Amino acid sequence: MRICMIGAGNLATQLGMVLKEKGHQIVQVWSRTTESASALALKLDCQYTTALTAIKSESDIYIIAVSDNAIETVLSGHHWGNSLVVHTAGSIPMNLLAPYCNNFGVFYPFQTFTIAKKVVFDQVPIYIEANTPQNLEVLKDLAQSISQDIKTFDSSQRQQIHLAAVFVNNFVNHLYTIGEKLLSEKGLDFEILKPLILETAANVVDHSPESSQTGPAIRNDRNVMDKHLVMLANHPDLKKLYSLVSEEIIQTHKK
Amino acid sequence: MRICMIGAGNLATQLGMVLKEKGHQIVQVWSRTTESASALALKLDCQYTTALTAIKSESDIYIIAVSDNAIETVLSGHHWGNSLVVHTAGSIPMNLLAPYCNNFGVFYPFQTFTIAKKVVFDQVPIYIEANTPQNLEVLKDLAQSISQDIKTFDSSQRQQIHLAAVFVNNFVNHLYTIGEKLLSEKGLDFEILKPLILETAANVVDHSPESSQTGPAIRNDRNVMDKHLVMLANHPDLKKLYSLVSEEIIQTHKK
Repeated sequence: MRICMIGAGNLATQLGMVLKEKGHQIVQVWSRTTESASALALKLDCQYTTALTAIKSESDIYIIAVSDNAIETVLSGHHWGNSLVVHTAGSIPMNLLAPYCNNFGVFYPFQTFTIAKKVVFDQVPIYIEANTPQNLEVLKDLAQSISQDIKTFDSSQRQQIHLAAVFVNNFVNHLYTIGEKLLSEKGLDFEILKPLILETAANVVDHSPESSQTGPAIRNDRNVMDKHLVMLANHPDLKKLYSLVSEEIIQTHKK
Repeated sequence: MRICMIGAGNLATQLGMVLKEKGHQIVQVWSRTTESASALALKLDCQYTTALTAIKSESDIYIIAVSDNAIETVLSGHHWGNSLVVHTAGSIPMNLLAPYCNNFGVFYPFQTFTIAKKVVFDQVPIYIEANTPQNLEVLKDLAQSISQDIKTFDSSQRQQIHLAAVFVNNFVNHLYTIGEKLLSEKGLDFEILKPLILETAANVVDHSPESSQTGPAIRNDRNVMDKHLVMLANHPDLKKLYSLVSEEIIQTHKK
């Protein structure tokens, strides 16, 4: 397919690269700044523009991969006519596109995209939605060309998945960051925590996390919890977090 | 070595089993109830007792694997003489044993032990500490017979590691539980989150979690965060947790 990539961040870059690898033609990149637009265009061997009005009409699909806040600005800056336009945001309902396009949908790769790590797209679930069965077929074809795991969800389901993902990805990563910080304060290496982190994650493959809960909170072991709160005396924010999550664990497993 | 296992819970069971597998002789099991003591003794093909005074003096090492609260009760219930006695608790300082024993230490397998999942001990780090270099050698030998990853930490280091582990294991698992619950409320399968959970954990092997943080909080994307809080309207506890962790992420990355 001929593709126009709107955006030049982590997701736009990784998605553009894999689409090109799989034989699609990236026609054009749009980004707000010349610097980012030209950098990605170089990687994708295509043209670029920073003017929304200069987006060409020859692509089969227009993929908007900009920050959530910027989607409407992008949509309102160009006449899309009958072009098929998709956004890539977990938390944005498909119908945000309705006032601006006749053919539209969502193409949401369900994975975390950082600069540091190249994602193996083959294993990334892609969740699609479209305003017509025909458009859904186009998105399915495109998704299948880069991934083995395609599912159709409506906007309400996708938003709930995105919310759950904030807990199990963004918040979990922040807990890892806290672990790293607590160790480094005592001159201990974060390496120490890696086997436990991997085992904790691997455990959910076969076991419900609810049934696998361990630790002082589920045992309601106030001695240990009180001792931990004392150890966190210099971190009022972590103390608060420790108390809240422990209380949550106690309440969840009381029921 | 000849070993006496004090306790018959998850850790005592898995540790006893692997020690037996590796050729050690479990002489005796003590547990508070006949039911649990006899069940483990059957697995370990050894004698059992529920009377602390009836613990035999012929073992080379006495491994206390009971809940943290019960350790002192166990210690005070028997004359240990010159026996080598260790506890297995991350959060308990070694010196808790000093008033009761002449030879003592800590033998702390750093992994999560649930009933459901059999732990591959070979890969479990074991953190040891002892009151004399001679006793440390004995613990090192014992640890090396079941694991490839042995480290010596003092009590203050071990307690900090245990605290960090509560964040990256117990609290992380609770976030997985929340993810599972949020999906099930919309009739969605927890399977959906597994690739993301595994990728999030795998990411820390090569990248610092602090540098890998993504999501609405680090972007300070108030639109998405506010929408999520609305979606959590029926879960005041999760709303509170969402706000607190998001604020924590914002503060951490502001610095």
